[in-house]
Amino acid sequence: MPHRYFTRELSGSTAALTGSDAHHLTHVMRADIGTQVLLCGPDGREYTGTVTALLPGRVEFTVSEGRPGTTEPSVALTLFAAAPKRGKMEEIIRHSVELGVARVIPFYSRYCVSQPGNEEKKTERYNRIAAEAAKQAGRGLVPPVEKPLAGFAGVCEALPRYDLALFFYENGGAALRGVFKQGKYKTIALITGSEGGFAPDEADAAVRAGAVAIGLGPRILRCETAPLAALSAVLTLTGNLE
Amino acid sequence: MPHRYFTRELSGSTAALTGSDAHHLTHVMRADIGTQVLLCGPDGREYTGTVTALLPGRVEFTVSEGRPGTTEPSVALTLFAAAPKRGKMEEIIRHSVELGVARVIPFYSRYCVSQPGNEEKKTERYNRIAAEAAKQAGRGLVPPVEKPLAGFAGVCEALPRYDLALFFYENGGAALRGVFKQGKYKTIALITGSEGGFAPDEADAAVRAGAVAIGLGPRILRCETAPLAALSAVLTLTGNLE
Repeated sequence: MPHRYFTRELSGSTAALTGSDAHHLTHVMRADIGTQVLLCGPDGREYTGTVTALLPGRVEFTVSEGRPGTTEPSVALTLFAAAPKRGKMEEIIRHSVELGVARVIPFYSRYCVSQPGNEEKKTERYNRIAAEAAKQAGRGLVPPVEKPLAGFAGVCEALPRYDLALFFYENGGAALRGVFKQGKYKTIALITGSEGGFAPDEADAAVRAGAVAIGLGPRILRCETAPLAALSAVLTLTGNLE
Repeated sequence: MPHRYFTRELSGSTAALTGSDAHHLTHVMRADIGTQVLLCGPDGREYTGTVTALLPGRVEFTVSEGRPGTTEPSVALTLFAAAPKRGKMEEIIRHSVELGVARVIPFYSRYCVSQPGNEEKKTERYNRIAAEAAKQAGRGLVPPVEKPLAGFAGVCEALPRYDLALFFYENGGAALRGVFKQGKYKTIALITGSEGGFAPDEADAAVRAGAVAIGLGPRILRCETAPLAALSAVLTLTGNLE
């Protein structure tokens, strides 16, 4: 399998890589004129790129006709993850991107132990981790990690945009298997809590905003495990983990 | 919810805790005569224990009649996990125990980067991690982590003991959803690989030993993510993640 790079610079029959990707391709992979790589475009499509020029900090390509990526799930999953204590969000992002999440949106809720601060830098770092994980997993796109929402109200406001919103509640809820008997979905939001879980009125607000409260069983999952179990379960039941 | 302790010393209407559990209960929880705790017996049943004596390094209880634990999955899942590089096995054990694994058996296969060595000490540490995770997750038992099997032949020999053996193969296989349409199982073995994956003849041997080769989809999962996805999928499809 040729090496996989994500490019934002792609138009018609040419493309380019810059920055660390250009460095990697030139100095680590020791590419020459004519070397072929797999380019993932900003359109989610895959292209075969053939190196035409190796410049300082820039590699240029001619590209084949694009083809649909083969590694993306049939459903776009957005993970709303309550901000956990330091380090754990990185673990959540890495695992989620591998599994197939389309977008990660951190948020602060009432019982979050973690407090907002230094968000620009954190978000930059999270997006770097997402890009690395996407490459390693062979994803067709790099799932963006958004800047965190300051409160749970922001999560509730966003939910009507999705075909289905699943609120994973530590106090229990419906069985996921029952939910997926009811239809097919193109966009699904998954909401998971932090170490402290959710306040009762936050749970009420999520359900009022249209989310279905879902239980993940009687064992207590840590806040870094619950998103992975939830994503794996949704991917399994939608035929995207096979 | 009262604090949960696992005891091996339980007979008739009395029980005891020793070692670090006795220390925790005495000095951290500051238990008195009459304090009640939840005791999980070696039989997988739960008991209400009432403190009758606080001795140096030992706490004694009278116990209620046992009741079946409510947090154990309906199916006993054994995870055969190929030994990954340092640190990752601890992550696999912690997540697996939370999710509901019944037993973890590490093994070395041909392409393992990790090499055997210091197994006594590692196994002791893994079992400590499993015990901590079981407590935090509210498990009804502490899943044992066995000493690693020296080769993949040992895994294959063990497979006929299970109602169903699932060989999670990085080169793909059947869809798990199809497998679970075929029946109900009491014991299931899950086999997952290390960073290097499996040699083709190991895959053949697993299938000859009765395992079903299962694919987890087109995205490349790291060796510490695959067991969690596999366990979550099996728990979902058997109704044990709801």
